[in-house]
Amino acid sequence: MEPVEIVEVGARDGLQNEKTLVSTADKLTLIRKLIAAGSRRLEIASFVNPKRVPQMADAEAVVDGLGQPEGITRIGLVLNRRGAERALASGVDELGAVAIATDGFGIRNQAQTSAESVTEAAAILAMARSEGRSAQVTISVAFGCPFEGRVDPARVVAMAAELAQAGPREIALADTIGVAVPGQVSALVRAVQAVVGAVPLRLHFHNTRNTAVANAWAGYLAGVRTFDSSLGGLGGCPFAPNATGNVATEDLAYLFAESGVATGLDLAALIAAAGWLSDQVMERTLPGMVSRAGGFPVPVPVTA
Amino acid sequence: MEPVEIVEVGARDGLQNEKTLVSTADKLTLIRKLIAAGSRRLEIASFVNPKRVPQMADAEAVVDGLGQPEGITRIGLVLNRRGAERALASGVDELGAVAIATDGFGIRNQAQTSAESVTEAAAILAMARSEGRSAQVTISVAFGCPFEGRVDPARVVAMAAELAQAGPREIALADTIGVAVPGQVSALVRAVQAVVGAVPLRLHFHNTRNTAVANAWAGYLAGVRTFDSSLGGLGGCPFAPNATGNVATEDLAYLFAESGVATGLDLAALIAAAGWLSDQVMERTLPGMVSRAGGFPVPVPVTA
Repeated sequence: MEPVEIVEVGARDGLQNEKTLVSTADKLTLIRKLIAAGSRRLEIASFVNPKRVPQMADAEAVVDGLGQPEGITRIGLVLNRRGAERALASGVDELGAVAIATDGFGIRNQAQTSAESVTEAAAILAMARSEGRSAQVTISVAFGCPFEGRVDPARVVAMAAELAQAGPREIALADTIGVAVPGQVSALVRAVQAVVGAVPLRLHFHNTRNTAVANAWAGYLAGVRTFDSSLGGLGGCPFAPNATGNVATEDLAYLFAESGVATGLDLAALIAAAGWLSDQVMERTLPGMVSRAGGFPVPVPVTA
Repeated sequence: MEPVEIVEVGARDGLQNEKTLVSTADKLTLIRKLIAAGSRRLEIASFVNPKRVPQMADAEAVVDGLGQPEGITRIGLVLNRRGAERALASGVDELGAVAIATDGFGIRNQAQTSAESVTEAAAILAMARSEGRSAQVTISVAFGCPFEGRVDPARVVAMAAELAQAGPREIALADTIGVAVPGQVSALVRAVQAVVGAVPLRLHFHNTRNTAVANAWAGYLAGVRTFDSSLGGLGGCPFAPNATGNVATEDLAYLFAESGVATGLDLAALIAAAGWLSDQVMERTLPGMVSRAGGFPVPVPVTA
């Protein structure tokens, strides 16, 4: 079985959707624990308006505090050229741009229509390239939108084809609100693969409706080898206040390890880090399941 | 896409693993709400020793109280011949026997070695047949055991072959402690299908490690058309106190509906019933996700 790469998004996508404001020091501890558990590529900050997203106001401080750990790719999320300038100045290794599949979500999330978000993402990719920096783009609400409902896969395929021309490191398909099912993932991945040439795909699933692990496995079977997740399932869904958000890193790590697919992650270290995050930082039970259940049980003697 | 049958096990497997003792009246309300939501086959009681399983002490009262609703199959779980006599006397439509894939679990769960549990299950199937009653058998810990760890698929295949000779309505493979991953499900289903002739399979997944929906989908793709689940994900895992148990009925209903597979279930009615169960009976947040997130979001205007 071919190995996968798990991109850790807890410190950005996860924390951004938590009510609790987490200190820069705790963010750095979180990132260091993740690196110690085997994470090699991590979204660590978002270069967005701190008035709109106070959780990410310390983006530069996180990048500075972390430094440049050997062999680690530090990703900064950017929604526009202004954010890209900040991200490039901060020294992150990779920029993550965001294109939105619907106008309804784009206008509310980043004041851009879907078409404008594609133009802006292409501009960000060009800026990064001109600075010799890596950049990729995520197509958000690729499977469904809280404002427009179902999303036409043809729209996502057309966006991917256009974005592929801008030379991203990879293109991600994001089920931002956690509505996708595995058959849709297989179909959309194959349709996008057909138009993006050699550009690899990444998948970003939320477990809002309990389908994220099934979707990740469908993506793997369709040939995708890179997946986003957040430790403990950190993060929520702003469109469904009682719902969970990102699929948990430890849950994907368990899925792949038990499936014979290497991730480079140490499950026990992830479980310990998720416990620390849950108890010491967030002070709530996080939705990740393997961190609560434990990995595959160790045999015990029958006599007791 | 071929339809599936969802067997509701909340009133038995679910409640049996909850600390709260639920009244007979609440059990009956739960079962009636499930039937109103489209459930047609339900595990409603377990005919086990009430001293060992106080949650199921009212088995006969539940069967009597429910009566014989038109078109509904009422399943009673039995672990031995004594239980089968009680179940047959109660008038349930179908007996569910249990064979255990490991000695470690069998001895602790029902004081039977694995081999003894197969003999006992075959005897129960014969008793039901001689009374003209339907019966099936579940192979428990088919993917892993809390006491013995990994389970050799060859043991499960051999058990299934032997049990198929006893003429069950179907044979279920149960991931009792929620350790399986989809590739294992596909492989075990295909291996068992090869030895059981025309006996259909049923799959019983726990979402302890977040793989249940992925496993159900793998089972569907492998040809299985019957799945167990419990409303709200009612139930827990006695071997992992903080973990979840049965996959939630509403989560499977969402998976299949969005995949174009008919279940006969009304998702909105399930969500409402899960809300009642969570708030009014269990007084805790149940782990089912679709009941908290809602179904596929209804579009709303962009202007707001």
